[in-house]
Amino acid sequence: MRIASLVTNGRPFLGVRAPTGDAFVDVSSLLESAPRDLGAFLRTSKAEREMLERVVRDARELETRARVAVKDVTYRPLLGGGKVLCLGLNYVDHANESPYEPPKYPVLFARFATSFVGHEQPIVRPSLSTHFDYEAELVVFIGRTGRNIPRDRALEHVAGYSLMNDGSIRDYQMRTPQWTIGKNFDRTGSLGPELVTPDELPEGARGLRLRGLLNGKVMQEATTAHMIFDVAHTIALLSEALTLEVGDAIAMGTPGGVGFVRKPPVFLTPGDVFEVDVERLGTLRNRVVDQSELEKS
Amino acid sequence: MRIASLVTNGRPFLGVRAPTGDAFVDVSSLLESAPRDLGAFLRTSKAEREMLERVVRDARELETRARVAVKDVTYRPLLGGGKVLCLGLNYVDHANESPYEPPKYPVLFARFATSFVGHEQPIVRPSLSTHFDYEAELVVFIGRTGRNIPRDRALEHVAGYSLMNDGSIRDYQMRTPQWTIGKNFDRTGSLGPELVTPDELPEGARGLRLRGLLNGKVMQEATTAHMIFDVAHTIALLSEALTLEVGDAIAMGTPGGVGFVRKPPVFLTPGDVFEVDVERLGTLRNRVVDQSELEKS
Repeated sequence: MRIASLVTNGRPFLGVRAPTGDAFVDVSSLLESAPRDLGAFLRTSKAEREMLERVVRDARELETRARVAVKDVTYRPLLGGGKVLCLGLNYVDHANESPYEPPKYPVLFARFATSFVGHEQPIVRPSLSTHFDYEAELVVFIGRTGRNIPRDRALEHVAGYSLMNDGSIRDYQMRTPQWTIGKNFDRTGSLGPELVTPDELPEGARGLRLRGLLNGKVMQEATTAHMIFDVAHTIALLSEALTLEVGDAIAMGTPGGVGFVRKPPVFLTPGDVFEVDVERLGTLRNRVVDQSELEKS
Repeated sequence: MRIASLVTNGRPFLGVRAPTGDAFVDVSSLLESAPRDLGAFLRTSKAEREMLERVVRDARELETRARVAVKDVTYRPLLGGGKVLCLGLNYVDHANESPYEPPKYPVLFARFATSFVGHEQPIVRPSLSTHFDYEAELVVFIGRTGRNIPRDRALEHVAGYSLMNDGSIRDYQMRTPQWTIGKNFDRTGSLGPELVTPDELPEGARGLRLRGLLNGKVMQEATTAHMIFDVAHTIALLSEALTLEVGDAIAMGTPGGVGFVRKPPVFLTPGDVFEVDVERLGTLRNRVVDQSELEKS
């Protein structure tokens, strides 16, 4: 199942992708109590979830009014309403190109909801800096709350997977010992397009080709098998420290090939298009605009 | 006005401290639509807020059933439902005792809701580490959303002030280049007891004596006048990067005297009581328990 937080005609709704691929089933219009975004969906009870799935299955067969064509939707950032935990330096090639050592323990920082836009929405180069860099990443959503989750049970806590551009303002990221501010400029990251449930993917989303493309040119390419801490290990280690809650997201880090370490450096400029592409998961695409351009409109 | 997120007889409610000091007015029971916690309160419209204030005023005079004695309440963590942004190294004496330089730009990291308990609730030393340290801090809550807020208008965005123990697991904090994991073990921090509105305090909560006390002994003592980035400056700088939203909190950093840099080091152990005390704001008090003790109960 592929689930997205969407808007059509100014109305927010939760969409489940129709099998034909060209439309979403508008789940929110089918039931009075239906969730309107991914966060609400992940928090529904098992009984409600099963009812929704049944309704969606019927709707697919019926080809009802609940179909909304993909061309008629706007994607909201795919947020679960929880923490957004991000791993740094989780691919050896990226750690090696950075000023840091490959980690022996997950390197963690946070992004806030204000830093994200949805698929096909413009990401924003701020007026304060031209050092706007891209980072293609796999994202995991937590579907069951837990603490001290054993590694061999960790994947039972996964609701699904999606994509992130962990867009970073490098000069601000490196200005202090903590990266947080450079990772949290408004609308510098993107999240989506859809949550893909684990049944559509290999276990732990392992061994998928992940790419980052700038204006169609491959800048980052790796397999998720090369993550230092894989999904199950990350969930186990993080949950030793903190409760992972329904709706939390974990961004699994970016492979080598980011812009600021290239010679000469490559930064995102207005008009550029960056894509995060993961095999079987889809493509997250965003055009870059300048903050001043956005403020005019 | 002093506002707290409380529970009495298992029922969550928003309390406004009665002028006598020994009771809260249960705002949530007075109005059908009344907010049940600080986050909901901060998001009410101006008209709703004014109505609530009028009701509270009347209730104070009437000494109605809406009074709940302080001895009958449990304090929830004072969360606004938004980001919790934390400044590191914001007092020169603390920066000097740390392995870092005093910052020229705010050092930012995040705490999540899962890391907090309320006033008089036990803070938890995790089973993974004995390096549990305290940090007494002033906290600011945002009451009006903004981006690029000018320094001379910044205090107009402040809803009020409160206290935080930014409890830290030092070995995990220093284990990677990012502090986030060591700052986010479950229930290692505390936030509260009350939001104190700006009219009860000096402008920007400046020049208040701030202390951290371990079992009654003063371990940290400073004035908020010694912050490197004061409240207005911090709001102005952070909002150049990101939107500060209603309900966001900013922890203003801790002064010198923390435990891990002492010789010999001082760490919190079960049975200890740590207090954050800020003049005119009040005292935030928490006893330390061991994780194993909590799991038994």
